[in-house]
Amino acid sequence: MGGDFAPRSPVAGALLAIGELDSAHTIVLVGRTSVIQSELDRLDTADPAGFAARRDRISIVEAPDVIEMSDRPTAAIRGKPHSSMVVGLKLHAADQADAFVSAGTTGAQMASSVFLLKLHHGLTRPAIAAMIPTLKSPVVLVDAGANVDCSAEELVQFARLGSVYAEDILMRPDPAVGLLSNGEESEKGNSAVKEAHKLLSAAGLNFIGNVEGRDILSAGSARGSLDVVVCDGFVGNVLLKFYESVPSLIFSMLAAAGFEQDKIARTFQGFDYSDYGGAPLLGVKGVSIISHGSSSPRAIKNAIQVAVRAVESRMNDHIGRRLGHAAVASA
Amino acid sequence: MGGDFAPRSPVAGALLAIGELDSAHTIVLVGRTSVIQSELDRLDTADPAGFAARRDRISIVEAPDVIEMSDRPTAAIRGKPHSSMVVGLKLHAADQADAFVSAGTTGAQMASSVFLLKLHHGLTRPAIAAMIPTLKSPVVLVDAGANVDCSAEELVQFARLGSVYAEDILMRPDPAVGLLSNGEESEKGNSAVKEAHKLLSAAGLNFIGNVEGRDILSAGSARGSLDVVVCDGFVGNVLLKFYESVPSLIFSMLAAAGFEQDKIARTFQGFDYSDYGGAPLLGVKGVSIISHGSSSPRAIKNAIQVAVRAVESRMNDHIGRRLGHAAVASA
Repeated sequence: MGGDFAPRSPVAGALLAIGELDSAHTIVLVGRTSVIQSELDRLDTADPAGFAARRDRISIVEAPDVIEMSDRPTAAIRGKPHSSMVVGLKLHAADQADAFVSAGTTGAQMASSVFLLKLHHGLTRPAIAAMIPTLKSPVVLVDAGANVDCSAEELVQFARLGSVYAEDILMRPDPAVGLLSNGEESEKGNSAVKEAHKLLSAAGLNFIGNVEGRDILSAGSARGSLDVVVCDGFVGNVLLKFYESVPSLIFSMLAAAGFEQDKIARTFQGFDYSDYGGAPLLGVKGVSIISHGSSSPRAIKNAIQVAVRAVESRMNDHIGRRLGHAAVASA
Repeated sequence: MGGDFAPRSPVAGALLAIGELDSAHTIVLVGRTSVIQSELDRLDTADPAGFAARRDRISIVEAPDVIEMSDRPTAAIRGKPHSSMVVGLKLHAADQADAFVSAGTTGAQMASSVFLLKLHHGLTRPAIAAMIPTLKSPVVLVDAGANVDCSAEELVQFARLGSVYAEDILMRPDPAVGLLSNGEESEKGNSAVKEAHKLLSAAGLNFIGNVEGRDILSAGSARGSLDVVVCDGFVGNVLLKFYESVPSLIFSMLAAAGFEQDKIARTFQGFDYSDYGGAPLLGVKGVSIISHGSSSPRAIKNAIQVAVRAVESRMNDHIGRRLGHAAVASA
């Protein structure tokens, strides 16, 4: 029931995903049964035969409450225990589902995920890992918005989480981790960043030092390639939203200049945010994928694919082991 | 002597500027006389008649020391009193020049400007105002990198400084000031931003509330147009450098897709950073324009134009009066 285009986008996205996933996978739609049912009925038109086969792998679990954008996250969890967010995460916590995907409010999903799935030992906060498309290959930005005031220790946690994510989801061995700062030199940065630089140098990661705003899109700095960009969630959120606004600016300018629109669209296809679909909330004991509120069915389908990949790569266990090793190493 | 292309860019830029400015304006080049002289001689070829007329309005003041990128800002001021930075700013402080422009190291220019020109009463820090080109008209980003850890009170100072800048340099009456945050709601933000939101609501400015990363390029939010974006210098620096890296990414993608390169260049002309050339260091009692280290002659010329506009609009007096009023209002 979450997101600007619910129930349409989640329901249509689930059908698209089922069409792509092998037959071992099933999807549980959580929300108001009657609304979901009529949405499914509405979509059952174009290809009745194909639809029936996909429909069989989708079940519905009733969740009558709906969390509104204006609800405060913690109040939403307590006041709306029968929301699709809480019911869905409880299914995951009880091992009745392997992952959870939502386009609902980020704050409520974070709070519910931490409350119901719990954090891995050694973490104080979860973090959102967002994919930034670049000319080469995408870069992981972490934290993309979960935490606004971060300590140096939390930045190090984000580096560990992002590193596992890059290994498991992007399949980058020994990912290069950069610390986002206002200069390459180690003495550049705000106080948390300067302290984090010291800690990261001894964290056992492939830490390449500070990177600047200009190093992200080139997916590399003077010191080599770049896979993971670490920053606090305030900076990450500002940067990500800024980035998301660039394509429409470029489109408008190119269209106004008379460039062929179809060709523009094809050129910038890889820069469509919906290609990545979902940003995992890293650090919780489970797979909780945060989708954009404005997600299209295609974005939801891709978010489900991210969830599948996280489950199949055992990313969650991997994070637990990595944090365990770090705790032993620093003890 | 400052910047990656000194002395060529500053000398050639000064000649370009003299060609555009009316005859009342003169330019003092500060640095190693022999180097500047031979650079001027080298440029005296294409148009000897026009050159002589421009050359007459350029003088040279000797400054033998050169500040290196590796010099620490305060050490540079003390250790290199005969650098072009210190000598040039002293000329301005002694009213022998109306403004100072440099493509040298930002840290040294900031420290020297504060030390030699002094801050306006009521300020604890200066701030860099950078112009962000948008689809509509440029937006002022302040602080673009002078201060990394900022208090709420400092963010309010940046808002006042940016507001005067938008009025005097961009000629926007009653400029709309937005506070950069990770959400539109007043309760969104890191601790300094949340506190600054409260202070700005009572600061007597045209404060439109929080703005997000996505509101910058559209030069507007759901609440109307946007002229000034306030943030700390860490976020501002990251965002500005990220933004500066976008055009080359777009160029590469469009060129690879076979779009006509000349037409691309024309389309994105207004997005060339060198159109804006210089970012004023606001808050000092004077006009100190910070140019990009990689400034072209055209960028230097435009930075000189920004300096002229700041002097002619009496921006500096205006800032002093505005801060004086704010002090009276809050007393």
